[in-house]
Amino acid sequence: MSYYAVLTFVVTSVFAYLVGNRKGRLDSQQSQAVAERERTLRKEERAGRTRAEASKRLRELTSQSPGAALKEGPTVYPLKPIGILESCFRQRNGTPRQPLLVPAAKARLKLRPGIPHACLEGLQGYSHCWIIYIFHRNTDLQDLWRGDDRGLKAKVQVPKLNGQRVGVFATRTPHRPNPVGLSVAAIDSVDIDTVVFRGADVVDGTPVLDIKPYIPYVDGGVRATAPEWVKDDNESSVLHIADVRLADGVSATLQQRWQESLTDKATRPLCDNAAEFTELLVQVLSRDIRSLHQRLQHVNAVPRHVNHRGGNDPHVSQYRVMLDGMDVLYNFDESGSIEVVDVDIDRLYGETNS
Amino acid sequence: MSYYAVLTFVVTSVFAYLVGNRKGRLDSQQSQAVAERERTLRKEERAGRTRAEASKRLRELTSQSPGAALKEGPTVYPLKPIGILESCFRQRNGTPRQPLLVPAAKARLKLRPGIPHACLEGLQGYSHCWIIYIFHRNTDLQDLWRGDDRGLKAKVQVPKLNGQRVGVFATRTPHRPNPVGLSVAAIDSVDIDTVVFRGADVVDGTPVLDIKPYIPYVDGGVRATAPEWVKDDNESSVLHIADVRLADGVSATLQQRWQESLTDKATRPLCDNAAEFTELLVQVLSRDIRSLHQRLQHVNAVPRHVNHRGGNDPHVSQYRVMLDGMDVLYNFDESGSIEVVDVDIDRLYGETNS
Repeated sequence: MSYYAVLTFVVTSVFAYLVGNRKGRLDSQQSQAVAERERTLRKEERAGRTRAEASKRLRELTSQSPGAALKEGPTVYPLKPIGILESCFRQRNGTPRQPLLVPAAKARLKLRPGIPHACLEGLQGYSHCWIIYIFHRNTDLQDLWRGDDRGLKAKVQVPKLNGQRVGVFATRTPHRPNPVGLSVAAIDSVDIDTVVFRGADVVDGTPVLDIKPYIPYVDGGVRATAPEWVKDDNESSVLHIADVRLADGVSATLQQRWQESLTDKATRPLCDNAAEFTELLVQVLSRDIRSLHQRLQHVNAVPRHVNHRGGNDPHVSQYRVMLDGMDVLYNFDESGSIEVVDVDIDRLYGETNS
Repeated sequence: MSYYAVLTFVVTSVFAYLVGNRKGRLDSQQSQAVAERERTLRKEERAGRTRAEASKRLRELTSQSPGAALKEGPTVYPLKPIGILESCFRQRNGTPRQPLLVPAAKARLKLRPGIPHACLEGLQGYSHCWIIYIFHRNTDLQDLWRGDDRGLKAKVQVPKLNGQRVGVFATRTPHRPNPVGLSVAAIDSVDIDTVVFRGADVVDGTPVLDIKPYIPYVDGGVRATAPEWVKDDNESSVLHIADVRLADGVSATLQQRWQESLTDKATRPLCDNAAEFTELLVQVLSRDIRSLHQRLQHVNAVPRHVNHRGGNDPHVSQYRVMLDGMDVLYNFDESGSIEVVDVDIDRLYGETNS
């Protein structure tokens, strides 16, 4: 064999080996990919079966409920609250329209029996969290639970737009196809099975579906824009209140009523003392809490149906708000100032909730 | 009558008039306050009756369902999705762990029949919105729908903490007492009864309970803090991927498979073209999407159960991800780089969903 023949043989062998090896690797990779796809198929099939069983079970659970909704279309999901929220807002009137506007507002969530306490472990490491809840005081809930869609509203009147109508999904209105609310709140304390929040715009007795930590870089890192009317209330806002003050003597009355309320079975205040309640009251009244109806009546004409005319002054109307066990009367004058004129124990609360 | 007598009479009269007038105003104010409280009482009574009726109706609706949950404790709320979300993520694996991490990810929500189209009017004025949905792919849903609390988990393993366990309410895990998710997404378009989102971290087929506009000054204006481990992924994060690249020829393969997929019944891609899909793929792989289990096996020991070893290199593992109708194989090397090695049409999707 000549030198060249040997060289050719060696080079060809090495080349063939390299090509063969590469092809082998490619083949092996391909067959392994095929095997892997088959494994995934089996896994998917298993997962599919699990899903089918879950979905069958869910159908069993819900198929006994009446209503056309269950005959076809999406499944109905039966959600059970993790607890009920106690709040200083015992009526929808006075409950802030957005979260964190009233930092002095306290709310307390105690996990219902059945939810393990350890669910809360680590929550105290966050400053804020989301609350997902049911708008249980909606007066149209009955229609929704009926099971058909007759009660569904498409649009709502917006306070900031003086009543102009907007699609419900373009607002945070409680009146929406699913009466589910979303609020952010500050975490005041976490203790065994109880979380105390501050700044929640949620009414007393609210069933809570879930709480989730507020993650600053995700939730707050969004460079979002919104329509011009959806902006923070400022002096030019229709909801702006120029000044909130207590009439002479009201502070003393408040102090006295608060002391009485501590021995009154009807109340179970969330505020610690009269000073904290006063702070809460001023924060609540610092935005116009009147209904759109009340406000438009006041603005557009000589008011007739407003609760009560303050003295002889045609420019002053009187309203009330129930707050943390107290019943508060206040005058609203045309310049946008509020004067609190009387405070009493809210005995309605005890009666309607006992 | 002396001058002083006249003066005294006049002064006394004026004083008496003033005092009487003030007293009258106070009396009138008080009696009106009482009348007003009575009116409110009647109104409350009426509202209470409405609530009682709604609650009775709800009890009727839910009392036929089995399970101890319904015998006592909070009511179960039957929520019906407003629509089902189509997403390019057709498996949980590969779905981003947080919203907005993958801006190229599209999702489409079409309102179900029964939801008025006008609900969406005005939504296009916002850049982002919240999506509240059901984690329908949870494998433990069956336990939850059973009606008792046996399936409830108290803690979950956190990927960023290498598996350390934290209370479910201190995380955004899908496995929570109510399988309800909350994500923010960019609004791409709003058209009659359909919203297209970008950046949603939501799996295909997700039942949506609600969408709400993201209100920058409320939702993003929160000065929130979170534990140190809850921070954006950076180079020191365990989930950081140094580099994502396509192996030689994969780009051409991808282009070809994409063309084929357009005539393939199994797929209905949300991406507009192969380039958009490539962008999506790179964004998805830019964070470690492997399960905690897979990752820890890779880090802690010579991997055994990982899907497939890439070639002869013990430091490279092979994984796959299904994305927008495509089935993607990629290698993961120990230095934290990813190489996409093969792309094919995801035929499993068509099979499991037809």
